[in-house]
Amino acid sequence: MRGNSFGKMFSITTFGESHGAAMGVVIDGMPAGIVIDEKALHAELLRRAPGQSAFTTSRVEPEVPEILSGVFEGKTLGSPITVIVRNTNQKSSDYDQLKDDYRPGHADKTTMQKFGIRDHRGGGRASGRETLSRVIGGYFAGLIVPQMKAFAWSERIGPHVNGPCQTLERSVLGFTNAEVSKLAEAFLLECKTHGESAGGIVGLRVSGVPAGLGEPAFDKMKADLAKAMLSLPGCLGFEVGAGFSATELKGSELSQNPKNFGGMEGGITNGDDLTMKVAFKAPSTLGEKAKVGRHDPCLLPRVLPVVEAMAKIVIADHYLRQNAYLP
Amino acid sequence: MRGNSFGKMFSITTFGESHGAAMGVVIDGMPAGIVIDEKALHAELLRRAPGQSAFTTSRVEPEVPEILSGVFEGKTLGSPITVIVRNTNQKSSDYDQLKDDYRPGHADKTTMQKFGIRDHRGGGRASGRETLSRVIGGYFAGLIVPQMKAFAWSERIGPHVNGPCQTLERSVLGFTNAEVSKLAEAFLLECKTHGESAGGIVGLRVSGVPAGLGEPAFDKMKADLAKAMLSLPGCLGFEVGAGFSATELKGSELSQNPKNFGGMEGGITNGDDLTMKVAFKAPSTLGEKAKVGRHDPCLLPRVLPVVEAMAKIVIADHYLRQNAYLP
Amino acid sequence: MRGNSFGKMFSITTFGESHGAAMGVVIDGMPAGIVIDEKALHAELLRRAPGQSAFTTSRVEPEVPEILSGVFEGKTLGSPITVIVRNTNQKSSDYDQLKDDYRPGHADKTTMQKFGIRDHRGGGRASGRETLSRVIGGYFAGLIVPQMKAFAWSERIGPHVNGPCQTLERSVLGFTNAEVSKLAEAFLLECKTHGESAGGIVGLRVSGVPAGLGEPAFDKMKADLAKAMLSLPGCLGFEVGAGFSATELKGSELSQNPKNFGGMEGGITNGDDLTMKVAFKAPSTLGEKAKVGRHDPCLLPRVLPVVEAMAKIVIADHYLRQNAYLP
Amino acid sequence: MRGNSFGKMFSITTFGESHGAAMGVVIDGMPAGIVIDEKALHAELLRRAPGQSAFTTSRVEPEVPEILSGVFEGKTLGSPITVIVRNTNQKSSDYDQLKDDYRPGHADKTTMQKFGIRDHRGGGRASGRETLSRVIGGYFAGLIVPQMKAFAWSERIGPHVNGPCQTLERSVLGFTNAEVSKLAEAFLLECKTHGESAGGIVGLRVSGVPAGLGEPAFDKMKADLAKAMLSLPGCLGFEVGAGFSATELKGSELSQNPKNFGGMEGGITNGDDLTMKVAFKAPSTLGEKAKVGRHDPCLLPRVLPVVEAMAKIVIADHYLRQNAYLP
Repeated sequence: MRGNSFGKMFSITTFGESHGAAMGVVIDGMPAGIVIDEKALHAELLRRAPGQSAFTTSRVEPEVPEILSGVFEGKTLGSPITVIVRNTNQKSSDYDQLKDDYRPGHADKTTMQKFGIRDHRGGGRASGRETLSRVIGGYFAGLIVPQMKAFAWSERIGPHVNGPCQTLERSVLGFTNAEVSKLAEAFLLECKTHGESAGGIVGLRVSGVPAGLGEPAFDKMKADLAKAMLSLPGCLGFEVGAGFSATELKGSELSQNPKNFGGMEGGITNGDDLTMKVAFKAPSTLGEKAKVGRHDPCLLPRVLPVVEAMAKIVIADHYLRQNAYLP
Repeated sequence: MRGNSFGKMFSITTFGESHGAAMGVVIDGMPAGIVIDEKALHAELLRRAPGQSAFTTSRVEPEVPEILSGVFEGKTLGSPITVIVRNTNQKSSDYDQLKDDYRPGHADKTTMQKFGIRDHRGGGRASGRETLSRVIGGYFAGLIVPQMKAFAWSERIGPHVNGPCQTLERSVLGFTNAEVSKLAEAFLLECKTHGESAGGIVGLRVSGVPAGLGEPAFDKMKADLAKAMLSLPGCLGFEVGAGFSATELKGSELSQNPKNFGGMEGGITNGDDLTMKVAFKAPSTLGEKAKVGRHDPCLLPRVLPVVEAMAKIVIADHYLRQNAYLP
Repeated sequence: MRGNSFGKMFSITTFGESHGAAMGVVIDGMPAGIVIDEKALHAELLRRAPGQSAFTTSRVEPEVPEILSGVFEGKTLGSPITVIVRNTNQKSSDYDQLKDDYRPGHADKTTMQKFGIRDHRGGGRASGRETLSRVIGGYFAGLIVPQMKAFAWSERIGPHVNGPCQTLERSVLGFTNAEVSKLAEAFLLECKTHGESAGGIVGLRVSGVPAGLGEPAFDKMKADLAKAMLSLPGCLGFEVGAGFSATELKGSELSQNPKNFGGMEGGITNGDDLTMKVAFKAPSTLGEKAKVGRHDPCLLPRVLPVVEAMAKIVIADHYLRQNAYLP
Repeated sequence: MRGNSFGKMFSITTFGESHGAAMGVVIDGMPAGIVIDEKALHAELLRRAPGQSAFTTSRVEPEVPEILSGVFEGKTLGSPITVIVRNTNQKSSDYDQLKDDYRPGHADKTTMQKFGIRDHRGGGRASGRETLSRVIGGYFAGLIVPQMKAFAWSERIGPHVNGPCQTLERSVLGFTNAEVSKLAEAFLLECKTHGESAGGIVGLRVSGVPAGLGEPAFDKMKADLAKAMLSLPGCLGFEVGAGFSATELKGSELSQNPKNFGGMEGGITNGDDLTMKVAFKAPSTLGEKAKVGRHDPCLLPRVLPVVEAMAKIVIADHYLRQNAYLP
């Protein structure tokens, strides 16, 4: 009830502070007998891992997942799957200066307001590092609905907008438009130089989602996706289909293009691709601290696999829920 | 698990199809010994009720709430509070033509895809009428955190934008800017005449919310608010604080104005007012059906008390949750 | 979170105080398209209703169930099913004397300790009348696993023991042994005359339960059945298979008879009949109040359909849960 | 939803198969700022650990708990606390013969019926080893209600009955009556020699439990305790207060002694000590396998700290739940 679990029939419970012993996840509700591929799991984690380009923090953790339970001879047992990743790079001294330093827009102050105690060495539970547990969960969720494909891209970074997504190739920044990416790269390097940071918008399309998923009242597919995304650090907005821009369309205009509904009607999937956008603010670490490495100037490149993972978790959960009621 | 309940320590379970016997709600987790005011409850319901102006459906239900349980001699007992509202105006014949008529953007088709059966006389569970149960829940939630004040207004209807909100007076359309409201009224009458409909954006500000509410991982305050709003019929988008527009701000710009964070940092309330925006699409009923009454050309005026109610439910729930852990 | 809901994929939320406006239940998780039989539902309720013999309270409520939602043209819609039963016989004056009269073994005192307020006209939520909501839930649960048959009988009332259960015919007191029933009838009439009450043990056998239901850790089938039964007013004990008497058997003796395991191994059903026993204490109302009608001298005859209902609810829930994970 | 979590405001999620990499638990809902004592935690675990006497399996695991999250500088952070214990003694070859050997009364067969796959090297999730996770949870639960004292003892092993509990000193077998213990020791050694096993009854008394805990309907204190105990491997029965023997008492006899109610009325604690009994069957491993070590002839000595832990978890959960609703 402290909100560290997400999902009902397929659920993840995440744990770990960024500078504690380990991050991890318990996955409950995985069907039994499913073959897993540890290399593929590791590859997903590496997409989120730091240190992959000039645009992500240089704090390098090996990020090797260790499976503690739920898998036997390469197959799921139906019992809870626990995966941990050790935190090997806890240079606490780097963080001593943060003890009484509350960054605006960061959880530092509110953690104290809530708990009266915090691990000042880093973001604790509020750290973006917590999201590696979600990526692990997303890997397993993907095995439940294998035909489902989630593809997230950078729709905007600062002022740079990707435009229509015409390929599945992503640049180092996650754009599918290579020219826009070049401009954004220069923009972010400039940000980094000045101890500055930038926000962005993630686009997400999920294909292969069966019709009939999502529940009519509170657990609408769009509602659970919204919660999934707004539970991500730095997320300030979410929209499905035509989203906020739909408010400018008259009913007849809206209904001319089924894509405006984002693959859901009445909150239930209709068999079309699910489409949504997720807004992330600029990171809160600024100034000298932001210049000296360890801090990303923009959340986007590394958040893409996390957004995909959260969508897969929501959909797999609803897939199992719907399956329960089918004859 | 069919998603008809919302909230944990303070929860509502809603039931009822728009053309069944009754709509209703069971409220679980109401503290005991709280004085209730049935007139105030009724007044809240009337804000959402149809037939109040030219801009809302002429289908008139008396909307008289009946309390079936949980209240004794005007006080809450701590047991579940059940309130029902009878559906007295079920003119089924009006709806026979809808039996095989699936409106784009509406739940008609997906309900069949999901359940293989539906009450074709109306929207069933997907009807906007389900939201009266939420308004009832919101009334009781408000009693738990009495200093909390939720104020929703029409920020946009079609092309008409309210601009800065400088009063707590709302027009018949929910604008605080009377001149904009006049323009929007003309716009909506025109829509209605042509069997057309319009979308809009709701603004919401909640004051009096204690710091420290919301949980660090999945049950962030912003995440639960997002789910609450996206669970509303017709909602396509949600943002907190600076929201999507924040993505254009650099980190230093963002942190200059605390309002950009919408009253939450790290997903936990910081004591500031909570601010958010919620996007609603144009209703799906169009053409001749939309002309002959019974259908609103825009969801906004009537959805305002529902948006307020959902916010109060989320906040009251988190208030009780936080209270559990305090010494 | 005030514990008025039970079950996960198939859940019931009960509400109502014994002397409030109505008792009722919201059933969530009912599969769609299932034909219901309102007469059969009513018949189940009448098995639990008072006033059927000299051994049950003469307080007569018509106990007519009204379905408010979730059913359309005789079939389930997949939406929440709400059923209420009005409390028509609230002779409050009878109860005024109870305002400050706390019966030992009854919830009177603890309700005040917990809530600081109570509806002194009757047992409130703690009243046995709450169990009619469970019987309604059990009716619907039974439709989910139609081959499941639950049969409860009086295994003991006071000193009178039924012995082996050789028929499905039950006496007015719920015995299958007619001679034992005669003795128990005389015993209970004597109790009633002296303002006395008696306890008893219910036997329950459920056939037609598929193998593989129940979860390995906390949600073992036996664990959820135990909770279901101990949640009944007056229940003080529960055992499966050989139960407490199993503790006197050596391992080799125990394993000779599969019935000792009560149809479950490792908490998971094995395809055998489920067997269990449930102990109920003597009712707490004694002396003059117990003589003048309105109070049963023993819970057993009327609790049998409730015990059956709770078992069916647990099994239906686990049936749907298991179904979710099957390919 | 696979039932690996227990509790609401204070919850434990357990994971691990007996012959996998590790056993462990995630504790969610621990209040922040509480000082923990790792030595005391380890001592609790050692009470349950094997190899402590001739009456427990000689399989020796060091059982060293490693805290992975949720604790910083000796205090709880309010974030999830994860503790693991490595399985260092996985002699798989010993178990190869068990691959197709389904022990009656054991989860071997039903695990296959449910999942279609199992880790045949041991009991998997059904292993008694899973209960070490519960003992860890119980340690933390105890810190939430520090005045609460749970004391479990062996009330019966095979034919040997402890009688009234007049001391808090427990023998190696958990009896408080030293003479009875001697007889039971001889009995169990004889069992072991013959590849035989024995059942028993655990007595439990919990003092220091505040009045007002437990909810009126399904989450009665006795109901949640029943589920907690029946979720233990080998448990076949549970009773509170006078339990099954109460069924022989008339109402007036029952109410003469408040202890008959076991510290609860209407399912809510009344401030008295909670008392209950829990029945365990003889272990399922018999014959040659049972002779050669590694298998306990009786569950009781080692299950005592587990029974205490489960009670503490239930009570701490209800303590926090009640606290949520207090002004």
